[in-house]
Amino acid sequence: MAICGVMRPGHCQLRVLDLEESEKFYTNVMGLQAMGRDASGRSYFKALDEFDHHSVVLRQADRAGMDFYGFKVRDAKTLDQLEADLKAYGVSTERIPAGELLETGERVRFKAPTGHTFELYAEKTKVGNGLGNLNPEAIIDGRKGISPVRLDHWQIHGSDLDGSRDLFINVLGFSLVERILMEDGKTDMAVWLSCSNKAHDIAFVRDERDDTLHHASYYLETWEQVLKAADILTIHRASLDIGPLRHGITRGTTIYAFDPSGNRFETFCGGYDYYPDMDTVVWTWDEIGRGIFYHTRELNERFLTVVT
Amino acid sequence: MAICGVMRPGHCQLRVLDLEESEKFYTNVMGLQAMGRDASGRSYFKALDEFDHHSVVLRQADRAGMDFYGFKVRDAKTLDQLEADLKAYGVSTERIPAGELLETGERVRFKAPTGHTFELYAEKTKVGNGLGNLNPEAIIDGRKGISPVRLDHWQIHGSDLDGSRDLFINVLGFSLVERILMEDGKTDMAVWLSCSNKAHDIAFVRDERDDTLHHASYYLETWEQVLKAADILTIHRASLDIGPLRHGITRGTTIYAFDPSGNRFETFCGGYDYYPDMDTVVWTWDEIGRGIFYHTRELNERFLTVVT
Amino acid sequence: MAICGVMRPGHCQLRVLDLEESEKFYTNVMGLQAMGRDASGRSYFKALDEFDHHSVVLRQADRAGMDFYGFKVRDAKTLDQLEADLKAYGVSTERIPAGELLETGERVRFKAPTGHTFELYAEKTKVGNGLGNLNPEAIIDGRKGISPVRLDHWQIHGSDLDGSRDLFINVLGFSLVERILMEDGKTDMAVWLSCSNKAHDIAFVRDERDDTLHHASYYLETWEQVLKAADILTIHRASLDIGPLRHGITRGTTIYAFDPSGNRFETFCGGYDYYPDMDTVVWTWDEIGRGIFYHTRELNERFLTVVT
Amino acid sequence: MAICGVMRPGHCQLRVLDLEESEKFYTNVMGLQAMGRDASGRSYFKALDEFDHHSVVLRQADRAGMDFYGFKVRDAKTLDQLEADLKAYGVSTERIPAGELLETGERVRFKAPTGHTFELYAEKTKVGNGLGNLNPEAIIDGRKGISPVRLDHWQIHGSDLDGSRDLFINVLGFSLVERILMEDGKTDMAVWLSCSNKAHDIAFVRDERDDTLHHASYYLETWEQVLKAADILTIHRASLDIGPLRHGITRGTTIYAFDPSGNRFETFCGGYDYYPDMDTVVWTWDEIGRGIFYHTRELNERFLTVVT
Repeated sequence: MAICGVMRPGHCQLRVLDLEESEKFYTNVMGLQAMGRDASGRSYFKALDEFDHHSVVLRQADRAGMDFYGFKVRDAKTLDQLEADLKAYGVSTERIPAGELLETGERVRFKAPTGHTFELYAEKTKVGNGLGNLNPEAIIDGRKGISPVRLDHWQIHGSDLDGSRDLFINVLGFSLVERILMEDGKTDMAVWLSCSNKAHDIAFVRDERDDTLHHASYYLETWEQVLKAADILTIHRASLDIGPLRHGITRGTTIYAFDPSGNRFETFCGGYDYYPDMDTVVWTWDEIGRGIFYHTRELNERFLTVVT
Repeated sequence: MAICGVMRPGHCQLRVLDLEESEKFYTNVMGLQAMGRDASGRSYFKALDEFDHHSVVLRQADRAGMDFYGFKVRDAKTLDQLEADLKAYGVSTERIPAGELLETGERVRFKAPTGHTFELYAEKTKVGNGLGNLNPEAIIDGRKGISPVRLDHWQIHGSDLDGSRDLFINVLGFSLVERILMEDGKTDMAVWLSCSNKAHDIAFVRDERDDTLHHASYYLETWEQVLKAADILTIHRASLDIGPLRHGITRGTTIYAFDPSGNRFETFCGGYDYYPDMDTVVWTWDEIGRGIFYHTRELNERFLTVVT
Repeated sequence: MAICGVMRPGHCQLRVLDLEESEKFYTNVMGLQAMGRDASGRSYFKALDEFDHHSVVLRQADRAGMDFYGFKVRDAKTLDQLEADLKAYGVSTERIPAGELLETGERVRFKAPTGHTFELYAEKTKVGNGLGNLNPEAIIDGRKGISPVRLDHWQIHGSDLDGSRDLFINVLGFSLVERILMEDGKTDMAVWLSCSNKAHDIAFVRDERDDTLHHASYYLETWEQVLKAADILTIHRASLDIGPLRHGITRGTTIYAFDPSGNRFETFCGGYDYYPDMDTVVWTWDEIGRGIFYHTRELNERFLTVVT
Repeated sequence: MAICGVMRPGHCQLRVLDLEESEKFYTNVMGLQAMGRDASGRSYFKALDEFDHHSVVLRQADRAGMDFYGFKVRDAKTLDQLEADLKAYGVSTERIPAGELLETGERVRFKAPTGHTFELYAEKTKVGNGLGNLNPEAIIDGRKGISPVRLDHWQIHGSDLDGSRDLFINVLGFSLVERILMEDGKTDMAVWLSCSNKAHDIAFVRDERDDTLHHASYYLETWEQVLKAADILTIHRASLDIGPLRHGITRGTTIYAFDPSGNRFETFCGGYDYYPDMDTVVWTWDEIGRGIFYHTRELNERFLTVVT
């Protein structure tokens, strides 16, 4: 088959300080669809055009951040193979039983060198996007809030970037799409990795704060929707970080903002289509500003320092 | 790895009735980049954001149509494996030596049940998109003509649709993304197949005229560019078929027009992102109009009958 | 003052065959805001960004079409002056008392040579667009249906085009923006007239069917919204005439469709900004197709023949 | 007539520190069309869709800023009347002879209370936009650089804002579209004035630095073009101030940047259509951030302090 191994970012479990306030935010402002709570009180959400049961799980906690990051893989056989590959690479894995997350099959959990907890899974109940598979409509009308079409990717920080990068490339089959080099001209400051035709499915940034989240990213189809997302954030007086803007890296357009717990998120659009025969794009230290914020060509302090 | 096997439509060789006129059309109206001619007089073109040496080859001939359709595969090992798989499936293959097409490695050629000639190859010289891989700009300025970013897919016609469909699914690893059923409610009238995260990389339509081309498709990034493409076609008085419009199938937006030889082409935008765990979308005979032309909900005669 | 005389198309009274069905259509599909019915049973609507009480009035009748077309003028003094000018030009006028239309002041009614009933008025109760005038938001969120921002213009047909054209230019101060000449190269087939910086506020087409409506036009801000309008029409299985497309005349983009009574409407976007020192654009008979439908460059029968 | 008096911002004369460098900038980056120099060495430019001979005149000088701001009026009779009205209001006027600016008729010059020099004129040679007035194309293909369609408006600073505001409203017929109040809740900090259906043709900001320019604004048709403008500015490493963004005031979208002499300019899109029966929108001191920069809701220092 032509798409194999790891398919896509499938779910993540986000810590929020006030669950009810967060449910309102993710429903009314972000425009995700509430899929209910489980017995432990976690609240499930899916994006507009996703067909699996959920992609975002909110868990009430006393500090913000992400509990774990889950990738959906091609099938059960792939899950077994990747688990074996992880073990062969020296990574400890754990099987989380089916049903621990609602409507989700067994998950293979492991910790990456940057301290983050990842999961692989092959099964999640399909609920569809509401259009059906028989003679469907071409758009989902009546969108509310920002209403991204899908969870897109994560940018996460930790000190052993090299370790996580190599693990994702050598074991999970990701490709190194873009990289920023540090002042020494050889050490990776940040890497963008893809397991698909997207310009990135995950990005790692070197940062002494292990197991931290810079942002979760949600996908919008057009630059006009990015503008509307910014407008909606203002209408709701949500905390905007920066944007609308374009990235040099991936060429995507975006805005960054914060959920009520201070978790940064991105509403992202565009980015080129990636194929693994493309050369890695390299950014040098002096051009990092333009790489991140293509128009202003300079970073802002908050974007660099705030993680959860 | 996560992207394996067949990667994408990579090149095709189109028959044109007047090579010089066609070169002008594909340069000035379509906005492809001329990459020169080979010793046999064939003329090579690449699209704006492609990095391989070429994707479209024009050959002067006394009738229009497509000589062959080439897919780039992941690497040489994949090429060997797919050739072996084709043979094991009972398909005769032929190796075309490296260099027969400019800057292109060995190609494995075979004929599909619908009569079309396909090729697989793993190597084509990278020339880049002009931005470079070191601290690149985020857009290619100074675009001329329609200037699609890439060759996207083909829709081709032949009688043994079932045979070609099964070959692409069972041997080449494509997924069945959407299908139109005939009046009997079970026979495929048309199928859309993907080897990537695109909603389609090729489409087959059941048609007694074997080895025919309905259209080659080129990709544009935005609906605004689709409008501009239509404007440019009018400025050059090119022969428009239909559009701008949206498809129900794939949800893409598009216009169709004809090159000076009567070969139909499409400038396509959008379409959802596909993953192989999605269910096949099924269209019934009575909804075919809306499936193809989502807004008018009716087919036109020319769109159904003209192939080359 | 710099804006004087006639300001804009302000209201019109449309005949519909089934008032309740039409109310649903104009609310749910067109996305106008229902403003209630009056004692005589007429139903009032306003568009999203209009601040006057209403712009569209539906009246139940046994045939479709438009009862009258109203322009709002600068102030009461202007209304008196224009009434005097009309009389001086030989046009009979009638004063409709304030309140005959809900929340509307006195109207000066007259019949144009093409048989249409026009009205001028200076007063209509301001209800606002919901944003307020103190520190307003920049967008109106939660739009439903097509939700045009305003009633934009009308295209109407009648035999004495010259008479109506001259009346609008000589008495009402409109400018002749674009014209299509008949085969004789001198008679106007159609004229586009503006009383503002819009490329047209009204268009007259020569047609032996006096007092007929070709379409009422509603304004959308972007080409992306034109696409969405077409999508919404399909979701509701409304009767589409043609589009999305661009006009050569005015350069606007648009779709045409029919309300449940068969009254054609347009959801229009773009068009250049007009100033009265611009030269009239002239279209000759042989280029009429491109003038109307810039991309296909040919008219369709339905567009030419159906009026109400 | 319905459009009378002052029609639009027609021309302005900008001081630049290096004429040749500026000519390159306004041609290649801004994408204006060079119309030649006059005997005194001034360099003339017009925007893409303007039909008058020029709108921007560059003059080499030892400091940046704007020499004068010219409005085109309806006709010669209007020019005489407005000159008389100015005199009656107590404003000294001066007639600049025809031809002093290339292809331009007599200009009536006067100084406003904020110290700026304004001009009114009725005649400038029409050169057209290149499309012609007979069966024109609907788009101008081959745009280079940012290529705005027109000079749109100016924002200028001076201490006697009240004086200039009243002069424009009482004598020149402008309307007060939006205003920002100072902390006292009654004094105007800034006013947006319109002589047309645009949300503003000029804006005055209270500032002790008399006769200063905050920015000249150029119009783009779409938000996608605003993005492209930002991209082009980065490709040319032009000095960006801020954007892309939306204004709360006028609702327009925009980016701000500086020409090589440090003169700020804006590439603006959108803004609602204005009619003089609309109520003035009022912004209070505490909401000024959102009024100016709708998304970030806070002003930046450079935007407030840099004028030329």
